[in-house]
Amino acid sequence: MKLLVEVDLVYKFDNATQVIASIEASHTSDQIVLSETLDVQPATQLLRDKTLTGDRRIRASMTGEVAIRYSASVENNVRQLLPETGRQHLWSELPHEVLPFLLPSRFCPSDKFMRFAQREFSNSGDGVARVMSILNWISSHVDYVSGVSDSETTAERTFVDRAGVCRDFAHLGITLSRALGIPARAVSAYALDLNPPDFHAVLEVYLENRWWLVDPTKLAPIEGIVRIGSGRDASDIAFLTSDKKCQMVSQTVTVSQAV
Amino acid sequence: MKLLVEVDLVYKFDNATQVIASIEASHTSDQIVLSETLDVQPATQLLRDKTLTGDRRIRASMTGEVAIRYSASVENNVRQLLPETGRQHLWSELPHEVLPFLLPSRFCPSDKFMRFAQREFSNSGDGVARVMSILNWISSHVDYVSGVSDSETTAERTFVDRAGVCRDFAHLGITLSRALGIPARAVSAYALDLNPPDFHAVLEVYLENRWWLVDPTKLAPIEGIVRIGSGRDASDIAFLTSDKKCQMVSQTVTVSQAV
Amino acid sequence: MKLLVEVDLVYKFDNATQVIASIEASHTSDQIVLSETLDVQPATQLLRDKTLTGDRRIRASMTGEVAIRYSASVENNVRQLLPETGRQHLWSELPHEVLPFLLPSRFCPSDKFMRFAQREFSNSGDGVARVMSILNWISSHVDYVSGVSDSETTAERTFVDRAGVCRDFAHLGITLSRALGIPARAVSAYALDLNPPDFHAVLEVYLENRWWLVDPTKLAPIEGIVRIGSGRDASDIAFLTSDKKCQMVSQTVTVSQAV
Amino acid sequence: MKLLVEVDLVYKFDNATQVIASIEASHTSDQIVLSETLDVQPATQLLRDKTLTGDRRIRASMTGEVAIRYSASVENNVRQLLPETGRQHLWSELPHEVLPFLLPSRFCPSDKFMRFAQREFSNSGDGVARVMSILNWISSHVDYVSGVSDSETTAERTFVDRAGVCRDFAHLGITLSRALGIPARAVSAYALDLNPPDFHAVLEVYLENRWWLVDPTKLAPIEGIVRIGSGRDASDIAFLTSDKKCQMVSQTVTVSQAV
Repeated sequence: MKLLVEVDLVYKFDNATQVIASIEASHTSDQIVLSETLDVQPATQLLRDKTLTGDRRIRASMTGEVAIRYSASVENNVRQLLPETGRQHLWSELPHEVLPFLLPSRFCPSDKFMRFAQREFSNSGDGVARVMSILNWISSHVDYVSGVSDSETTAERTFVDRAGVCRDFAHLGITLSRALGIPARAVSAYALDLNPPDFHAVLEVYLENRWWLVDPTKLAPIEGIVRIGSGRDASDIAFLTSDKKCQMVSQTVTVSQAV
Repeated sequence: MKLLVEVDLVYKFDNATQVIASIEASHTSDQIVLSETLDVQPATQLLRDKTLTGDRRIRASMTGEVAIRYSASVENNVRQLLPETGRQHLWSELPHEVLPFLLPSRFCPSDKFMRFAQREFSNSGDGVARVMSILNWISSHVDYVSGVSDSETTAERTFVDRAGVCRDFAHLGITLSRALGIPARAVSAYALDLNPPDFHAVLEVYLENRWWLVDPTKLAPIEGIVRIGSGRDASDIAFLTSDKKCQMVSQTVTVSQAV
Repeated sequence: MKLLVEVDLVYKFDNATQVIASIEASHTSDQIVLSETLDVQPATQLLRDKTLTGDRRIRASMTGEVAIRYSASVENNVRQLLPETGRQHLWSELPHEVLPFLLPSRFCPSDKFMRFAQREFSNSGDGVARVMSILNWISSHVDYVSGVSDSETTAERTFVDRAGVCRDFAHLGITLSRALGIPARAVSAYALDLNPPDFHAVLEVYLENRWWLVDPTKLAPIEGIVRIGSGRDASDIAFLTSDKKCQMVSQTVTVSQAV
Repeated sequence: MKLLVEVDLVYKFDNATQVIASIEASHTSDQIVLSETLDVQPATQLLRDKTLTGDRRIRASMTGEVAIRYSASVENNVRQLLPETGRQHLWSELPHEVLPFLLPSRFCPSDKFMRFAQREFSNSGDGVARVMSILNWISSHVDYVSGVSDSETTAERTFVDRAGVCRDFAHLGITLSRALGIPARAVSAYALDLNPPDFHAVLEVYLENRWWLVDPTKLAPIEGIVRIGSGRDASDIAFLTSDKKCQMVSQTVTVSQAV
């Protein structure tokens, strides 16, 4: 599937503010960025990073009202879907850089869920089967409702609330996976079919020697998702991080399928 | 059943410390205190309170090592067990003084559990049936394990941990009851058959125009329980509250059935 | 000072909802309600309570869009202001019903603040002097800013955030008072001079054998405050408690000084 | 200073347990490991990792009672102490891999401390001066006391408690640094002069194009510290991470200065 992404962000910065923006499609093996443009008005000096995992970030100092516009054409027919079977790795089999994604993090306190996860999923088979059980458990026990959660909501709280949005669904999926010894990370994304259109949050699990993208909200087809960045949880993949408070003036996200 | 209770507490207070002790059997209609003795060494001036609900408290200033010994003989064959059926009251039918026990409190944040409680118990019938469903849910989803929780553990945390002790079971029972509009309060107690012997924590629910004692741990028979005090949650029924840190030197609780 | 209060609340209830409203001026010795009217449209059966402390509550079942209108004329020149000196009671000197206001509660976890309170206020003298030090500390260390806190914010969080609104200021004042052994309770109120006009939250401390109203926000004159209800913290003094989610359609509060 | 480190750990694993141990001195430019030995009894297959930052980890599957013994001789006269002056970097000047250490993490929720940090430290100068102000603030406002905190204690809680141990001091230092835009990370260590001897936790701040080790507890001389591992907070630098609960049977740590 070939996707066209366009995002327009306008922010207001009262004072000179240091900013890290994470809005560009990642350059990873599971999606091909055919073309892309980035424009910031007024003209601003930008530092553009690419991490070891292919995620990209923009660093800049911004003042006053600033408009950031990014558009990309992305082919992601190379993305493979989670296979029907696949086993969970022993920790000793994992690449070194995957280990941090076994650990609890701020929004994904997997250490607190070890007993629940054992009780609920220990008979769910291994690897892919176990991940599917987690995704199904979330679908059937948590309502997709906006307004219940906010930017400080942890998976622990969502587990009690039984309601949340994509970010919360992803955090809960990550938390339960890690509680069962499966590496899991948060992924920010653009996605087809979201209503209203917005940034999306999903997760990746590490099985069968690679990361697989899954979406516990089931709102978008996996092949309709454009990866932006990955990290331990929402703390790492915010589309804007700043050293001072700033104000979002407007945000428009459009994702469409190219014909 | 006629019960003999004996408790010996030794505390060490580095400085003159104000203390409120809640260790005496309550003078309520569901248990008859046949005889009791209270002894504090060294001799200390005591102020003995009785609340409107029949709970009793001792106030004193204590310094150095202090031994508190309380013994009582209690007949509780007057206590009625939760009947097999019984309906939940409309809020407008409740006595005025019962209303606070509908509200969330520190360890029983029932407001956060409204969605879960509706999802899980809305088909469980009304009143007694609903309370029985809650108690059964706790039995089958939470392990009785010491060392998981501490004095700051809330029902929210126990719901995630899926493990705890009597205090945590009581908090979860109270929380889920309140989340469904049923008044519930925490009760401190002495109880037969605890191993090791210790203070116990249970709860009471208000149905059919009165409070009924129930024990989600199922560790002690209801007729083997001697009520001490009641309140919103563990904050209100601590057996010792002090205005400075103090150290417990020893604690011995014995409950036996009189022949 | 003679005050005229008028409040218009419109709520929407999707289903029959049980409601407890706490919006009427309390009938306490520190304010005289000269006249008052309560009107609910559409006409609804109301149960009107008065607690032992003179607080009043309305109980009803409400469906659809409901308008509640309350107006009162209140003389509060009988209210006495916190005197310049006054000592803190020993716990054994307190009336029995004041004791719960020494304990930590959900939004006022005073047990966690004992070390900070000792460090910061142990040299602040006793009783009134200590309360004044607490109020001054809050004024100089916490910013009055809306949007930082919400209905779940505890005093612990406000202490970190260093910002909040009247409810947060009251919670912090209560928490620090209790941490020093001074009974303190939350009070909901109407108040002159609030901009924008809204419900207000203040606190009362128990010194010199009675409760004294104080306002850590210093936004309203003490004699310009009309008490509604009191409790351990915001959980107890919500102006509307309901057994199901409901939606506020509009809220208008007017407080003026009668000439 | 040349240091001899010896650590003996005995753990009991009821079932085959996957383990990641982080107990070896890091191979970094600020300390030279002259010699070292690692012995596990009974003999166990070990996978030994070295991260990009020179931290080392042992991966293994362990069952029954297992004794891990590590000893090392370390020369750390190459470690440089925080200079007297040094400026804070713009975010755009930082190496890419340092950016995550600007972000809030589970035990170091720096986003909540931005207002406090601005209020308290905005006049403390820049860079080194600001870090020194943070360390001095911690020394004068927080008591080093064991038993107040546990493995779940966050910097937010320590800020309220005003007491904790090395882990808590490090978390608070990291949190306040990040709140001011200074990259900071947690470091596990062995250290001279600890009483009782134990693992130690300190932090590093990034200024003047490199990381500098600082110790807010002031318990050990900087040159008496042997680095083990670094990460965002205590989650990342646990000396033992396991996929099931296990029991520590004994732990002995000895650090001495070689003559």
